[in-house]
Amino acid sequence: MNSFGRIFRVQIFGESHGPCVGVTIDGVPPGLPIADADFTADMERRKSGAKGTTPRKEDDIPLVKSGIFNGHATGAPITLLFDNNNTRSGDYEKQRATPRPGHADFVAHEKYRGFEDYRGGGHFSARLTTGIVAAGVIAKKILAGAAAGVTIAAQITEVAGEPDPEAGLQKAIDAKDSVGGIIECRATGLPIGLGEPFWDSAESLLAHAMFAIPAVRGVEFGTGFPAARMFGSQHNDPIIDAEGHTRTNHAGGIVGGITNGNELVFRIAIKPTSSTPKEQQTFNWETQEVEAFSVKGRHDLCVALRAPVIVEAMTAIVLADLLLLDRAAR
Amino acid sequence: MNSFGRIFRVQIFGESHGPCVGVTIDGVPPGLPIADADFTADMERRKSGAKGTTPRKEDDIPLVKSGIFNGHATGAPITLLFDNNNTRSGDYEKQRATPRPGHADFVAHEKYRGFEDYRGGGHFSARLTTGIVAAGVIAKKILAGAAAGVTIAAQITEVAGEPDPEAGLQKAIDAKDSVGGIIECRATGLPIGLGEPFWDSAESLLAHAMFAIPAVRGVEFGTGFPAARMFGSQHNDPIIDAEGHTRTNHAGGIVGGITNGNELVFRIAIKPTSSTPKEQQTFNWETQEVEAFSVKGRHDLCVALRAPVIVEAMTAIVLADLLLLDRAAR
Amino acid sequence: MNSFGRIFRVQIFGESHGPCVGVTIDGVPPGLPIADADFTADMERRKSGAKGTTPRKEDDIPLVKSGIFNGHATGAPITLLFDNNNTRSGDYEKQRATPRPGHADFVAHEKYRGFEDYRGGGHFSARLTTGIVAAGVIAKKILAGAAAGVTIAAQITEVAGEPDPEAGLQKAIDAKDSVGGIIECRATGLPIGLGEPFWDSAESLLAHAMFAIPAVRGVEFGTGFPAARMFGSQHNDPIIDAEGHTRTNHAGGIVGGITNGNELVFRIAIKPTSSTPKEQQTFNWETQEVEAFSVKGRHDLCVALRAPVIVEAMTAIVLADLLLLDRAAR
Amino acid sequence: MNSFGRIFRVQIFGESHGPCVGVTIDGVPPGLPIADADFTADMERRKSGAKGTTPRKEDDIPLVKSGIFNGHATGAPITLLFDNNNTRSGDYEKQRATPRPGHADFVAHEKYRGFEDYRGGGHFSARLTTGIVAAGVIAKKILAGAAAGVTIAAQITEVAGEPDPEAGLQKAIDAKDSVGGIIECRATGLPIGLGEPFWDSAESLLAHAMFAIPAVRGVEFGTGFPAARMFGSQHNDPIIDAEGHTRTNHAGGIVGGITNGNELVFRIAIKPTSSTPKEQQTFNWETQEVEAFSVKGRHDLCVALRAPVIVEAMTAIVLADLLLLDRAAR
Repeated sequence: MNSFGRIFRVQIFGESHGPCVGVTIDGVPPGLPIADADFTADMERRKSGAKGTTPRKEDDIPLVKSGIFNGHATGAPITLLFDNNNTRSGDYEKQRATPRPGHADFVAHEKYRGFEDYRGGGHFSARLTTGIVAAGVIAKKILAGAAAGVTIAAQITEVAGEPDPEAGLQKAIDAKDSVGGIIECRATGLPIGLGEPFWDSAESLLAHAMFAIPAVRGVEFGTGFPAARMFGSQHNDPIIDAEGHTRTNHAGGIVGGITNGNELVFRIAIKPTSSTPKEQQTFNWETQEVEAFSVKGRHDLCVALRAPVIVEAMTAIVLADLLLLDRAAR
Repeated sequence: MNSFGRIFRVQIFGESHGPCVGVTIDGVPPGLPIADADFTADMERRKSGAKGTTPRKEDDIPLVKSGIFNGHATGAPITLLFDNNNTRSGDYEKQRATPRPGHADFVAHEKYRGFEDYRGGGHFSARLTTGIVAAGVIAKKILAGAAAGVTIAAQITEVAGEPDPEAGLQKAIDAKDSVGGIIECRATGLPIGLGEPFWDSAESLLAHAMFAIPAVRGVEFGTGFPAARMFGSQHNDPIIDAEGHTRTNHAGGIVGGITNGNELVFRIAIKPTSSTPKEQQTFNWETQEVEAFSVKGRHDLCVALRAPVIVEAMTAIVLADLLLLDRAAR
Repeated sequence: MNSFGRIFRVQIFGESHGPCVGVTIDGVPPGLPIADADFTADMERRKSGAKGTTPRKEDDIPLVKSGIFNGHATGAPITLLFDNNNTRSGDYEKQRATPRPGHADFVAHEKYRGFEDYRGGGHFSARLTTGIVAAGVIAKKILAGAAAGVTIAAQITEVAGEPDPEAGLQKAIDAKDSVGGIIECRATGLPIGLGEPFWDSAESLLAHAMFAIPAVRGVEFGTGFPAARMFGSQHNDPIIDAEGHTRTNHAGGIVGGITNGNELVFRIAIKPTSSTPKEQQTFNWETQEVEAFSVKGRHDLCVALRAPVIVEAMTAIVLADLLLLDRAAR
Repeated sequence: MNSFGRIFRVQIFGESHGPCVGVTIDGVPPGLPIADADFTADMERRKSGAKGTTPRKEDDIPLVKSGIFNGHATGAPITLLFDNNNTRSGDYEKQRATPRPGHADFVAHEKYRGFEDYRGGGHFSARLTTGIVAAGVIAKKILAGAAAGVTIAAQITEVAGEPDPEAGLQKAIDAKDSVGGIIECRATGLPIGLGEPFWDSAESLLAHAMFAIPAVRGVEFGTGFPAARMFGSQHNDPIIDAEGHTRTNHAGGIVGGITNGNELVFRIAIKPTSSTPKEQQTFNWETQEVEAFSVKGRHDLCVALRAPVIVEAMTAIVLADLLLLDRAAR
């Protein structure tokens, strides 16, 4: 099921080398102002061009197909398309016999019994995150319009183990290899009460969305994994006023699965780009042997560099849904 | 929404100090043999009694209310209840003015506007995991019956930073404080192809379920967070045969959101028990001041000790659902 | 999937001759006052006792297992059980070889491969509507608390073709046969705007719920089937004021799938009780022959007589969900 | 929520006078052959051109945007667009002050607070059924590939009360008014066991889908409303063999909410086209008075004439989903 959300619902579709990728967003409150220019900043952040990112260039201008009229959401589903102009499928046809390590080639071939669109990763391509970023733009607008004015900001805190992204990327360039990174996301202005106990805890929904981003291998909230080595008296955040502010924020803004009004803080781990320039080994379906293998095509040395805006978008998608659900519950 | 799953659906209900907790499980294939004795081992693992766990004792014998007939699942929803016999609500009434740090008291009070059942954590209590463990028992039976015979095993790998749980727990006892831990879960025998690209990736669904377990603060798959510091050529797992076996398993059995037939491996971080014996501070709604505060009631020094069976149950719930969905997709 | 609704979610479970039937209701706004006495009137309406209804007697007092505390909904799932005290399963064991015409015996046996609880219809029994009526009581309270004070009333308009239920029932008694009937349901005070275009039209959701009631064979809104023989100029309801009131109400309160603020009106057709006193024919699995067959057990001559309160409950369940969803959308 | 289905999921989007309408279909089994030509016959049946249908012409050639590769479904979401070429929006701008009786103009304006795309009915337009018909084509192919080879055929059985559609339409032309009709749908080859007791009964899901078709006012299964006037001994269908065949088929192929392997039969009532050529009355938002009103634009005299293929499509959508779910349950 390629959709997510209960009220604010997002469905993505498309393939890396098909005519386009796209997104349908259902449940947008009617009257929300949406202009083409609203998408520009986040689409640019997602796009390639910086050092260490793929030379594939796409305009990534959303083509509005439905749900926006006279500059406002109508309340009907919003469908946005992003044309794929800059595809070189030939790169991939030749490599089909050798499923790329770290990529979905092998599992896609098995799951879809050979009918998958294998060009450029097909439906598994990170190009699909274009629609997620666009949905995130709309979700952010919903959140910004809420009482407290929710803000969301994600940033890279580590590349290849270096706190400085430039230094981390240089390690990749020097090693002629790909690298990973850590992204931290923070949100302020959230009301108390978003999320549910157990299944639909705020952490559950956020982690669900984060692990939908390609290459994410870990998610932790607040103090995260190091919390496992703390004493309870250290980790507990003393509540200090009637608004629920806490003296520390080891919880990262969520207690019992529910936002507590303090800053939301979580981190995600992103693995090194599967398409490394280094030679690798993989099984060849034709020869039925393990062979040396080199990735062709155009790829990022560190996908983490482009991920913050996707992390923000996913966060906004989850929080917008929870905010709308919260209204239903009152 | 207190339910989870698309085909194998689990709904939990109840409160810590109400008449019972329970679970309704929908989508169990008719004919699955289910006997009372099937629940004993896992229910015992979840129960208290070991050093460092709460002295509250409950029988935790499932009362079958529907869906099982003549020792088999009928195909109709299965409802199981667990009576709450051993409750001392008086402990909690007195403390209502002081929301316990680390607990859901404050957020529940705000979200439910004071109507929440506050006794013993009410619906937020870890007692609710009784139903999850019971659902896990049934899910494991479905998985065991699948072609390859799926096995799931979770274990504590760290308590209070010690690889030895006994040593870790002793740190808690010595410090008169609560501690956290790390749990690792592994599953073998999974077919290739469970999970979907993006929203319903196997990681997304597993993490969703894991963060529904109280006190979980982080989830990582395969190599996890350390993957962010590896080179791509190190992290990629070379595929070595037509079955998709890989030479290494940094991916932890999931690539592109989809199981690749190798061992599923993930870890979760569990924070120290919120109810520490140490004195803490919190806001008092009555006096409107921050006050010293000591937890009453009976509590585990390390909730991680009881969590492996819950982690297994959640894993089984997710994998059983994916396995049944996989049949629909073929 | 034995659950229904997006915000106000209802799950039923149980079997006719198991220990109980029950219902779990999720999404009830915290603070809604709920007393045991609230259920009495509707549970009595559903119960047997009148002429033409089964002599099986059950107390049908809801046993509150979760979600209600100090006389109010807590916001957590509400589980209510109804014990089955008055069961005579022996009646059914003998008849298992002869699937009863009009009943689910045959399809249940095939679908569940012989593992179904066949006693008294098992999970297919109309006894399951006990939980639906109870959920309806809570839904009605939500609706009554809404701005305009929604009221719902269903009544029998026809039994065995007679506008007078007594006369219709007498036809059944005279013919020693079972009969069907028509029920009309009306709701006032609905806001404009409930429902969605297409899939989640108000008619779609109401019809979905109505056809979940055993024995319902048709649903029509407003003028219904006779509308197919009208001219457009006759059927269209002229709008006569800014509140959207219409001069006529052929639409039955729904236009374009959305409530228009006028009275909601729909009718359902209920087939004659499948368990007629008349001798019938059916296939015998043991003899592999078609045989004469007489129904044993205790049954209503006209199930329509007990259905109005179930129709009201289903209507309330749908409308409460739509009302809560409507809040989310604004 | 503009989507429907649990495994085979359909989402529609678009507006009558926007750039296009479209559909995204998720859950299509990989490998299903899909060619452009597969859509032609059903798209032609849906299109205008016959006497009594609107002169608006559209090519209605599906533009494949995703999910089909080398002539087969890939298993990823299939998105199809249908360009809107032949729009005359000016017709509608002038009339905005006068909400058309029988249309969604008034409710859409209230629900979406004036932000709805009002041109040609916007998202409420029957043009949206283009995507439904396209999804139906794919669903039919899934059903045709199932063991027994499911066939679905809907036909008009009555126009303006006449069994002959030509005669019925002539009544409309003579009266210079619009008319309604009855459509009957039959499906053969269905396995025993599709559908669930209660909420997801086959009738519930089919009726849900049918009432999502604009202008449908009633749905009845098998004997339908007249069943309410039969005796049980007449209405019950005697089972006559081990395959569950019945001597009669008053049930219309569904018993206890579950298909019984006999022919599925149901009828729907379609109201007369709201856009009648006759002068009508409605409220004018500008003058705040009830005024005479004449419909502009291009419209069918009898929408029922184009509806059979939509009814078939909806039937196929529901049955394909149930068929795939049935595989998951075994």
